[in-house]
Amino acid sequence: MRFDEAYSGNVFIKSHPNYEESEAVIYGMPMDWTVSYRPGSRFGPARIREVSIGLEEYSAYLDRELDEVKYYDAGDIPLPFGNPQRSIDMIEEYIDQLLADGKYPLGMGGEHLVSWPVMKAMYKKYPDLAIIHMDAHTDLRDEYEGEPLSHSTPIKKIADLIGPKNVYSFGIRSGMKEEFQWAKEVGMHISKFDVLEPLKEVLPTLAGRPVYVTIDIDVLDPAHAPGTGTVDAGGITSKELLASIHEIAKSDIRVVGSDLVEVAPIYDNSEQTANTASKILREMILGWVQKKG
Amino acid sequence: MRFDEAYSGNVFIKSHPNYEESEAVIYGMPMDWTVSYRPGSRFGPARIREVSIGLEEYSAYLDRELDEVKYYDAGDIPLPFGNPQRSIDMIEEYIDQLLADGKYPLGMGGEHLVSWPVMKAMYKKYPDLAIIHMDAHTDLRDEYEGEPLSHSTPIKKIADLIGPKNVYSFGIRSGMKEEFQWAKEVGMHISKFDVLEPLKEVLPTLAGRPVYVTIDIDVLDPAHAPGTGTVDAGGITSKELLASIHEIAKSDIRVVGSDLVEVAPIYDNSEQTANTASKILREMILGWVQKKG
Amino acid sequence: MRFDEAYSGNVFIKSHPNYEESEAVIYGMPMDWTVSYRPGSRFGPARIREVSIGLEEYSAYLDRELDEVKYYDAGDIPLPFGNPQRSIDMIEEYIDQLLADGKYPLGMGGEHLVSWPVMKAMYKKYPDLAIIHMDAHTDLRDEYEGEPLSHSTPIKKIADLIGPKNVYSFGIRSGMKEEFQWAKEVGMHISKFDVLEPLKEVLPTLAGRPVYVTIDIDVLDPAHAPGTGTVDAGGITSKELLASIHEIAKSDIRVVGSDLVEVAPIYDNSEQTANTASKILREMILGWVQKKG
Amino acid sequence: MRFDEAYSGNVFIKSHPNYEESEAVIYGMPMDWTVSYRPGSRFGPARIREVSIGLEEYSAYLDRELDEVKYYDAGDIPLPFGNPQRSIDMIEEYIDQLLADGKYPLGMGGEHLVSWPVMKAMYKKYPDLAIIHMDAHTDLRDEYEGEPLSHSTPIKKIADLIGPKNVYSFGIRSGMKEEFQWAKEVGMHISKFDVLEPLKEVLPTLAGRPVYVTIDIDVLDPAHAPGTGTVDAGGITSKELLASIHEIAKSDIRVVGSDLVEVAPIYDNSEQTANTASKILREMILGWVQKKG
Amino acid sequence: MRFDEAYSGNVFIKSHPNYEESEAVIYGMPMDWTVSYRPGSRFGPARIREVSIGLEEYSAYLDRELDEVKYYDAGDIPLPFGNPQRSIDMIEEYIDQLLADGKYPLGMGGEHLVSWPVMKAMYKKYPDLAIIHMDAHTDLRDEYEGEPLSHSTPIKKIADLIGPKNVYSFGIRSGMKEEFQWAKEVGMHISKFDVLEPLKEVLPTLAGRPVYVTIDIDVLDPAHAPGTGTVDAGGITSKELLASIHEIAKSDIRVVGSDLVEVAPIYDNSEQTANTASKILREMILGWVQKKG
Amino acid sequence: MRFDEAYSGNVFIKSHPNYEESEAVIYGMPMDWTVSYRPGSRFGPARIREVSIGLEEYSAYLDRELDEVKYYDAGDIPLPFGNPQRSIDMIEEYIDQLLADGKYPLGMGGEHLVSWPVMKAMYKKYPDLAIIHMDAHTDLRDEYEGEPLSHSTPIKKIADLIGPKNVYSFGIRSGMKEEFQWAKEVGMHISKFDVLEPLKEVLPTLAGRPVYVTIDIDVLDPAHAPGTGTVDAGGITSKELLASIHEIAKSDIRVVGSDLVEVAPIYDNSEQTANTASKILREMILGWVQKKG
Repeated sequence: MRFDEAYSGNVFIKSHPNYEESEAVIYGMPMDWTVSYRPGSRFGPARIREVSIGLEEYSAYLDRELDEVKYYDAGDIPLPFGNPQRSIDMIEEYIDQLLADGKYPLGMGGEHLVSWPVMKAMYKKYPDLAIIHMDAHTDLRDEYEGEPLSHSTPIKKIADLIGPKNVYSFGIRSGMKEEFQWAKEVGMHISKFDVLEPLKEVLPTLAGRPVYVTIDIDVLDPAHAPGTGTVDAGGITSKELLASIHEIAKSDIRVVGSDLVEVAPIYDNSEQTANTASKILREMILGWVQKKG
Repeated sequence: MRFDEAYSGNVFIKSHPNYEESEAVIYGMPMDWTVSYRPGSRFGPARIREVSIGLEEYSAYLDRELDEVKYYDAGDIPLPFGNPQRSIDMIEEYIDQLLADGKYPLGMGGEHLVSWPVMKAMYKKYPDLAIIHMDAHTDLRDEYEGEPLSHSTPIKKIADLIGPKNVYSFGIRSGMKEEFQWAKEVGMHISKFDVLEPLKEVLPTLAGRPVYVTIDIDVLDPAHAPGTGTVDAGGITSKELLASIHEIAKSDIRVVGSDLVEVAPIYDNSEQTANTASKILREMILGWVQKKG
Repeated sequence: MRFDEAYSGNVFIKSHPNYEESEAVIYGMPMDWTVSYRPGSRFGPARIREVSIGLEEYSAYLDRELDEVKYYDAGDIPLPFGNPQRSIDMIEEYIDQLLADGKYPLGMGGEHLVSWPVMKAMYKKYPDLAIIHMDAHTDLRDEYEGEPLSHSTPIKKIADLIGPKNVYSFGIRSGMKEEFQWAKEVGMHISKFDVLEPLKEVLPTLAGRPVYVTIDIDVLDPAHAPGTGTVDAGGITSKELLASIHEIAKSDIRVVGSDLVEVAPIYDNSEQTANTASKILREMILGWVQKKG
Repeated sequence: MRFDEAYSGNVFIKSHPNYEESEAVIYGMPMDWTVSYRPGSRFGPARIREVSIGLEEYSAYLDRELDEVKYYDAGDIPLPFGNPQRSIDMIEEYIDQLLADGKYPLGMGGEHLVSWPVMKAMYKKYPDLAIIHMDAHTDLRDEYEGEPLSHSTPIKKIADLIGPKNVYSFGIRSGMKEEFQWAKEVGMHISKFDVLEPLKEVLPTLAGRPVYVTIDIDVLDPAHAPGTGTVDAGGITSKELLASIHEIAKSDIRVVGSDLVEVAPIYDNSEQTANTASKILREMILGWVQKKG
Repeated sequence: MRFDEAYSGNVFIKSHPNYEESEAVIYGMPMDWTVSYRPGSRFGPARIREVSIGLEEYSAYLDRELDEVKYYDAGDIPLPFGNPQRSIDMIEEYIDQLLADGKYPLGMGGEHLVSWPVMKAMYKKYPDLAIIHMDAHTDLRDEYEGEPLSHSTPIKKIADLIGPKNVYSFGIRSGMKEEFQWAKEVGMHISKFDVLEPLKEVLPTLAGRPVYVTIDIDVLDPAHAPGTGTVDAGGITSKELLASIHEIAKSDIRVVGSDLVEVAPIYDNSEQTANTASKILREMILGWVQKKG
Repeated sequence: MRFDEAYSGNVFIKSHPNYEESEAVIYGMPMDWTVSYRPGSRFGPARIREVSIGLEEYSAYLDRELDEVKYYDAGDIPLPFGNPQRSIDMIEEYIDQLLADGKYPLGMGGEHLVSWPVMKAMYKKYPDLAIIHMDAHTDLRDEYEGEPLSHSTPIKKIADLIGPKNVYSFGIRSGMKEEFQWAKEVGMHISKFDVLEPLKEVLPTLAGRPVYVTIDIDVLDPAHAPGTGTVDAGGITSKELLASIHEIAKSDIRVVGSDLVEVAPIYDNSEQTANTASKILREMILGWVQKKG
């Protein structure tokens, strides 16, 4: 029993107690105010941490243990309710600092719009950045019913910033006709429906490049991730998603940061979605963090 | 079987098909983007309509039937996701039009901030307006973590506009110390914990005045309304809330509009909250709409 | 360990293994095919039995234990899905047999229509039968959208058979205007909203008479019984219902049979409704069964 | 803002406002009174409409948008609770009228028995009708515990009417031994367990023929459709079901009508089943409606 | 943004970061392995902390704010799964240390057996200790089906240790006949069904004495606390429980420690039980902690 | 109607009424007190029985009907809450008796630790026993946080007893590094991630040997079995599990007993897990019981 140091409460399992010594930083972005359908992903990070206690510390896939990587759980960024612009600015500033400190950013959403300021900050540090995007949705809208800050727009924003040819989307099964057409016209990669097989073809072409990977949990079929805002039938299995993470782990790309977004616990009483998310984070930590070198 | 006219779908039970001929208009304000705790009230209006099919058309309390009042269900106002300011402006403009057309506004939230533009519009038409407010929370903040547009602020805004002595709050059991102090200093009425008995004392003092009544469903104990964003123990029963509505119905005040907000269906699998809300709306229609005269 | 006699499975706690020796018989009537709103009460009896394992065998209210009464759980009557007429006929025949064998019938619904054939059978045996009916709804319709066999009709049917002056309804808060008017015209007793106080006035007038008591679980407020088809705010507490049962227990009426209907487990994940129902059944057993004498 | 025309409420997304101009008509058949296990599919159509708001209007599979087809949502047929025979008669009459008006019928159940009167009406118009049936269950019973009108019988009824060789079942994994034997003896096609591969073999043999397609949502594995009455492990994925719909779309058969039945929302808090159903309906609309020619 | 100190994660709202400076210590006892009905209270402490973020920091009942009391959240005691004896020993040792350090122990269960070692440790420090016990159940068994360590025994154990006349139970509505008889014979106070009124009579007789208060959340009616292992109809309201806490706060007894046990989140999707528990803890902190003097 | 023999209540569908005449015995082991994450599997057996009413009696996979096998449902073993050692002893004694009577034991958990005493008893009868183990987890720990009796240890215990080369694990995707290493060192078979294909290779090597098969429902992906204590993404489908059962059925091994454990109904409102479990049990009965030879 130790009463003499602060109880570190609900953190991701096996988090390192010291920021300076850590290679990676886990942080939550509890924002869901621009979603057009079902909100609730603001509670994703807290629930993922809570259920991580049920996680095995060893990966039978990668033959590594969490003790082999130092990561620090920095808690949630205190985003202002209902103010997308200020939230985005806070996130960008936060990531700037993390990158200045040489940390690998490992984010938990929140809605997908939170990935936009993260990717923007990454691009400032890595001018040759590429994006790997796994999602059910294109997220290529310019605006949603008049709002330029929407969970339907982050991939369009980053594609506009770094060039659409540097963005690779996988597993996409929903979007507007115009979004698919735009991607085609500007030469942005979109693999419809599947992730693993097309990823195997793309990865060699990115060898050596710094890559940020953003995963919307709804790339999984609703059977595997019912706890998300916009469920969309016809998705991939958790087996395929895990295999895709491992494929990246053994590739020659440099993963310089990643996130997992859109876990909304209230829609999943079984909590399988949060449990699956915590397992995905473990595989990201064990497979990707030390690929920066 | 009639195929020759548009299926009027999911409307509040017994709604009149014609706007012009109606005395009252029901409308939804599906906004929940500034809530500080649990979102989901955007789906309140739709679910209240859906379950209203299970509602008896006759009130055994008031001995009146829904056929005796003409009300039109105008659907939900298409509020822009994640933009509080634009949402508020749209609601105000909407109510301005309703009032210009001589309609009794009967709103369904959505978070409580939606009541602010409604009350503002009411005040333009009724300069001697008073507000009756039933809620677990004071909602008297100036801002919430820096945001002036928050579900914790609507009563403060209307009190600032029409004068705090014209605002009467009942059932309050939560708030910041500063909110209670401010109310005390400026002479705003706050009845803590209870509604019915203090209401009986206040109503005679408002005789003849135009009154807007705004009810946050969380004035009910969580036992009676689990399906809301911020559940708070120690509330009133649905019996007391119904009796309070009937007390107003038989008083000498002029009810010129009303709303019921913060029903968030996802937190209540039994759907008792939405069912209770639909019964409350029925009693508002039967007890209040024709008290304008 | 005993393998040598049939496992008696999911029966109501402390049921006696022998039909002949039992004073009372518990049986389920798993029918919900005429309900106009939410079905599911067919699973009520099974779930009530299942949760009865969590029930204390002693009543601190009546200072009696379940061992003091012999009751046999006969399982569910195998009613034909979707055939109301045949279901009703089967129930009537079943009760005829129970009464011929001198048993106290203790039924579990199922929708309220199942009480009609039970009461009909009771009347054949007890020509001076009175009915005590606790419910949120009048159930006095002649038909529902053209169907004479509906869960909205059982009290009308029995009132027509035994005379409306022999039927006493309590706790009623919903119905059509015509139903309340009819009751008034023919002199049938309806106590609106409350049960305990009006019951205290009625009971002495029924002294010595054989009475069948039918309780629709929705007489309880939805807070106390969310797991039912038609939830209706403004009901009584479980405390008041228990007190009403005890009031009957100590009165001078002869309770000759009773039922508890409309428990629909799917609408109540907490299973408080089924647990409450099992406690009500225990109090019926301990308070009413031996009042036949 | 338009107050001057009736709010069209909860209709399937992008429904056309005019019956006459529409090619297809969507209608609900909210009946669940003959089911032998878990009821609740009466609320399927309303919930599918409600969640259709979350649906993308464009199909990335078929490269078509909902604007390209005119369909009218006619609401639910007001079926009489608890009366299977009258319900069936009403449905048949309803479809007769739709067909007389030249509309493509697109039905939503409700239990599977509702498909029987639809198919019967189709056969009157198309004497060379064939049926494609996707389901976990044979539905080939003559009666269920004595009831000839049961959700276990519709395929037997239509097979008896149009000849079993004109009925093709896919994905079947449950039924009585006698049902499978009967099918074998009379030469009715049953593909056990799978849908897509056997469908590819059957479709060419039906080229040019008018075909009605009836899909029981439980053909999906419970993982993909937990919200149904009778869940049965070992089913197909939503990916396979979508691919099967597309296979039919590109075949040479003439789809003259279709339905999707047995969505029971209460068993699925995540609402993935209703969301999946709405996507299936979108693909039916985009892939099948204009194949009548 | 501060990365330089450990993220303090999921702690009870406004917890003080320093153990030494704190007057009270909050700790969880996540044990549920001896419960005879529904387990799950091991997750009570974590969920209570998680939802405490939605709590107002000011009590409108006591006119005090959480800033006025220093309390430290020490996290959960890491109890060994499935080993009641070792768990109990660990808890006792833990409390011994807290008391040696002069802290007010504020515990969260877990099942009610966890209160036994706490009370035992309290008695070692306070030989004139009295117990106030609010619960639906007597908890006076000697053993449960042969097991002396059971959630049905803690009050018997403490009564045996400190003398039954020093134990006062309130709100009791369930137990074995023998338990009530034993209490009567040995002169232990049991108030059946109610809490507030009998408490008002008892409190003056305890003036000046050190008192430990143990509250089983199931003293509340299931309507107010569905999220618990053994729901039992006929309980008190959350209003009455809050008033009872305040009655103790203004009495002359010295509250030297307290706990709240048996919150089991999985049985309450609305999370009203955990939210109510967090409010009760706030009132305990504001009303009781500084009454030690 | 038969009142003259005990209602056999909630038994697994089509159970034989007589122990002596039965070939197999179904029994529940309602224990969950050593689980390290989410408890609740104590209610697995009761719920599996309850939902078995929805099961078809014929297997379209094996072309057999339940009538072809005589099995007796002996109910649940009354295990003492919170006492792992005594529970284990009771189970072992129970199985000894079953085996002495020549019965095939078909157990339902409960947590996986219950399989340990069963396997121990089997080994006493069958000295050349082999174990087939399907699970997400290795369950090869020596102890869990100091407790040698834990749901993480049963496979280690049996491997120590019968020799690790006689234990074959399939579908494993979680465990400690040390567990996998130990298995490798001692030559115990572990197939990671998959079941069907490696099983096909192993079965011929076990031809003629007596084999006990223990299945943890979490070998299924959470999509297929959300209702279990420790959900773990990346599992097999219910289709693969059914195929694996059938593969064993047609192999040359002698299945001498089997169990299915870890169904925890509370985490699955759809009840798909319990329904799937009841189907798996049916296939075990039809495919394995008479392979004793």
